[in-house]
Amino acid sequence: MMRITAVRERTVQLAAATRNASIGFGAMTASALCIETDGMRDGRPLVGLAFDSIGRYGHGGLLRERFIPRLLAADPSRYDDGNGGIDPHRAWDVVMTDEKAGGHGERCGAVGLIDAALWDLVAKHRDEPLWRTLARDDGVSASARIALYASGGHYRDADDVPALCDDVRRAIGKGHHRFKIKIGGAPLMDDMARIDAVLDILGPGMTLAVDGNGMFSRDRTMEYLDALKGRPLAWIEEPVHPLDFDLHREIAALSPLPLATGENLFSRDDARNLLRHGGLRADRDRLQFDISLSYGIVEYRRILDEMRAQGWDRARCAPHAGHLFAAHGVAGLGLGLAEVAMDDRSLFGRITAGLPLHDGVATLPDAPGTGFEACPAYADIFGELLN
Amino acid sequence: MMRITAVRERTVQLAAATRNASIGFGAMTASALCIETDGMRDGRPLVGLAFDSIGRYGHGGLLRERFIPRLLAADPSRYDDGNGGIDPHRAWDVVMTDEKAGGHGERCGAVGLIDAALWDLVAKHRDEPLWRTLARDDGVSASARIALYASGGHYRDADDVPALCDDVRRAIGKGHHRFKIKIGGAPLMDDMARIDAVLDILGPGMTLAVDGNGMFSRDRTMEYLDALKGRPLAWIEEPVHPLDFDLHREIAALSPLPLATGENLFSRDDARNLLRHGGLRADRDRLQFDISLSYGIVEYRRILDEMRAQGWDRARCAPHAGHLFAAHGVAGLGLGLAEVAMDDRSLFGRITAGLPLHDGVATLPDAPGTGFEACPAYADIFGELLN
Repeated sequence: MMRITAVRERTVQLAAATRNASIGFGAMTASALCIETDGMRDGRPLVGLAFDSIGRYGHGGLLRERFIPRLLAADPSRYDDGNGGIDPHRAWDVVMTDEKAGGHGERCGAVGLIDAALWDLVAKHRDEPLWRTLARDDGVSASARIALYASGGHYRDADDVPALCDDVRRAIGKGHHRFKIKIGGAPLMDDMARIDAVLDILGPGMTLAVDGNGMFSRDRTMEYLDALKGRPLAWIEEPVHPLDFDLHREIAALSPLPLATGENLFSRDDARNLLRHGGLRADRDRLQFDISLSYGIVEYRRILDEMRAQGWDRARCAPHAGHLFAAHGVAGLGLGLAEVAMDDRSLFGRITAGLPLHDGVATLPDAPGTGFEACPAYADIFGELLN
Repeated sequence: MMRITAVRERTVQLAAATRNASIGFGAMTASALCIETDGMRDGRPLVGLAFDSIGRYGHGGLLRERFIPRLLAADPSRYDDGNGGIDPHRAWDVVMTDEKAGGHGERCGAVGLIDAALWDLVAKHRDEPLWRTLARDDGVSASARIALYASGGHYRDADDVPALCDDVRRAIGKGHHRFKIKIGGAPLMDDMARIDAVLDILGPGMTLAVDGNGMFSRDRTMEYLDALKGRPLAWIEEPVHPLDFDLHREIAALSPLPLATGENLFSRDDARNLLRHGGLRADRDRLQFDISLSYGIVEYRRILDEMRAQGWDRARCAPHAGHLFAAHGVAGLGLGLAEVAMDDRSLFGRITAGLPLHDGVATLPDAPGTGFEACPAYADIFGELLN
């Protein structure tokens, strides 16, 4: 039986001088995690690596207080896969021991990191890229090629529109075809100018979505929906509060524009309520639950089960952020679309910056696991955790 | 302007060899918090104290990572009440800076501790018990006398029913009239034997409620509701998953037995969805949102506003746990019922063990603030944080 021998974590500063309509990112952090085992690979201990998704801060405190100690205290028989490896589903039950139902914030990100590191480890143990591991377990037909969109357009204090246009042009030059920019952090007229400036740049077949980060009132939402009529947008994301399901229902009934939401719901329980009560349309709307912030692949599969039960195709899923790990989730679970940072010079953006990209389609590497080891941000994120 | 000069926290072990239907409490922890200011009281710095509610572990990691640093970094003008004191509502906005919407778990408990400590501090600054401070701000008529219920009946490995009966008899001897015991951690027949054993002990006017801790399937719930017909129970608490609003609606439509729920929803957003979608009955059901685990008084008032908007009387509120702090909330906000631990020898139970109690009605002390300083567990909880 493979035994987990050590779990190391560190908090990485992601400070960026940008804002969306909801928060500033000046003090943003993320956690990097390394799970080490007594398994061997290429003459060294087999390890699994994970890095946080973005926007909810690092999870070091919770990892140290509850989740890492439970994992290290567990007898290996409790997470054994019966075949000499580790079963992330069984390990998930170990780390969630003595955790009550509900309260799906923060802890879901800590557990999601452990889940992500274990999937990296399992895929390495099987000597295959993570997407293959996930696809085989799920029985979906999958390939290394995934549709990507480039997310950015945060507000800047100076030269906002020209800098935004430069960002989009640079991303087009790198092979991107789909874009998303922020709305709601400026007056409507300014937002319309930003949107029109980007639409002017886009070539044939390219698309633009907009993201309100959940901060609009009902009235302001109506204003935006009215103003956006006639603009060929791929979707409007989180115009209103992520947990106001009734207001989602109202908006969905009023406008044909596709809605996208879900990045601030972190569990099967909350996803189920959104689908039951939010009035979303399975023919057009997008579900953006963040895989690693939502307890990881183990819980995300429960979300996919819930979606199927409620008549939703998993191709409607476009997970929030999540870098390489989420990209493997999109490929291996048969989801619709992966999100990457438009700014590929930020630490977060550099994780996926090396992916070959043509016409908005990226190809995941053949390297075993998640493939962090070959990504341009590897040393900056994981260097101090390895040795 | 009063300045917050230091914030100290420590994690307290609450380990207890008990279980409910959901989790064991062997590794349970809680956080104690002390906020110190440059205000003076009786020749010493004015401090505010808070102690966690129970069941969700301590919040030290999150407090240290995000919420204490924000409070200490803020200019005092950001939390000044305009009158030489601190305004907990403004301080709440400070600590929630750059926090996204949704994700109401863990962080709500960390913020709730800061809120609770600041209310303790404000009441001390005004030289009055906390319930008076809350009542004046809310414009409710209030008194120091509150209806209490004694909560216990966790499962034991040996002598379960006799020990349960001893607990209830001892509580009756101390002045308790209302009781709640666990269900669902044993087969139905065993649970019925526990319930009947307690009902046999109760005198005239005394009541018993039962608590499933959210673990029942639909079928098991139906079995219990059927078996409980004819038993004069005050309520059945969390028979089903706290976030399955549709299932609450189904059960509420099937049985006249009062339902109680809400202790595993930690925000106005989640409370609103429960009231909108859960089919609960404003004439009988109980809402048990935990004040300090739900971002504290500041957010709890938003919950009360939401209840009023949806036609609910705040007397339907019986906050989960929360010891002396929640008891002041019940008195000062005009809520229906406070919960205390039946076992008044545990650390948690000792916090409220000193309250004068007759016929199920307790009287809060006149001491300024929450009154921790005079409670039997004071030194054990706060000793290391002071001086």
